[in-house]
Amino acid sequence: MVKQKVAAAPSVRRLPAYLHLVRQAQREGLQYISGTFIAQELSLEPIQVRKDLSITRIMGKPKKGYAVASLIGAIEHFLGWDRTRQAVLVGAGNLGTALLGYQELQRQGLHVVAAFDVNPEKIGSRIHQVPVFSVATLEQEIPAWGVKTALLTVPSQAAQEITEILIRVGIEGIWNFTKAKLRVPDTLVVQKEDLSSGYALFCVMMQNRQPEASPPS
Amino acid sequence: MVKQKVAAAPSVRRLPAYLHLVRQAQREGLQYISGTFIAQELSLEPIQVRKDLSITRIMGKPKKGYAVASLIGAIEHFLGWDRTRQAVLVGAGNLGTALLGYQELQRQGLHVVAAFDVNPEKIGSRIHQVPVFSVATLEQEIPAWGVKTALLTVPSQAAQEITEILIRVGIEGIWNFTKAKLRVPDTLVVQKEDLSSGYALFCVMMQNRQPEASPPS
Repeated sequence: MVKQKVAAAPSVRRLPAYLHLVRQAQREGLQYISGTFIAQELSLEPIQVRKDLSITRIMGKPKKGYAVASLIGAIEHFLGWDRTRQAVLVGAGNLGTALLGYQELQRQGLHVVAAFDVNPEKIGSRIHQVPVFSVATLEQEIPAWGVKTALLTVPSQAAQEITEILIRVGIEGIWNFTKAKLRVPDTLVVQKEDLSSGYALFCVMMQNRQPEASPPS
Repeated sequence: MVKQKVAAAPSVRRLPAYLHLVRQAQREGLQYISGTFIAQELSLEPIQVRKDLSITRIMGKPKKGYAVASLIGAIEHFLGWDRTRQAVLVGAGNLGTALLGYQELQRQGLHVVAAFDVNPEKIGSRIHQVPVFSVATLEQEIPAWGVKTALLTVPSQAAQEITEILIRVGIEGIWNFTKAKLRVPDTLVVQKEDLSSGYALFCVMMQNRQPEASPPS
């Protein structure tokens, strides 16, 4: 995995929320948006907002704030969302299917060109327009598509085996939705998504809200 | 929204990964697991692991580490995952359907008792065994179930309107999968999940890996 940490990772993580808000402002016809307004809407400190946005190199104007169109462009360009990123998805189960239908990702430039699964009923079909191939054909198909990004949504036990195939065929980045901690070369980018992390935080907040635990049910 | 931050939120977020690893160790028949081993497996510093685990009040034994069964129990108890949390899900689209079929959450004590949607074809059916009701019946159904937790997977434009109904019927915590920043009373717990954050980080890591941006496609 790429060991080098992303500079300002928490700032990068907040950029999509800024983008969403600024696009809303654009739809409402606003020309400028202030850091203070953004901070208020997202319950952040204004200084944090200005620091976060500065990584995209955008400059605000005194008293006016950020030009809405430029701010959208700067964030999209910084994230590379103004270009198409082609990807494959491996594992077209519940979560995989949901991701294939998740239009937000398409708006962010992610274009899944092919999905792979082991289920004979799915192979040869299309899910949300995306053709589904057999996992057994990964080594032939991926080089043919010339894709460098893979979304990994297989059962966790299969994750390492599939990852080794993905490495062999030249995949450079894996967005990992499994519970598995992948063993990969240092040059490979891995971003692990774990819904359980958010749920853990939710549960602790709920407990803090109610100091008395509910009885077992 | 509950403004008080969760003490040690990053530690809480890492607990599910520890739990997953320690359960694996248990399946392999291990009695004890060391903080150093956990750190190695998850690419963390041993001191971080010990600090994270200390929030569950567990104590390791010198030279042996943590008793595997006790560690599992301590993490589950701290997160409340040793009890059942009943919930409703509002919005049985792609993502909602995926969540209803996501067994990991059931293992963490989350039991979705009812789903709500606007699609007449879904209302009256079951998705992954969970009965689907009309959104129009939210105000009757939720008090009848006595549920305090809601998973929100409606389109973002509908999120605030649904949230106001959820507040009226006594929901105390919302796990928010929409892009909307919800306006809620201070007493309500909201945990927002945003796949776009992880994707933003992934994209920046991929760009750092390849300093030359790929040509537009």
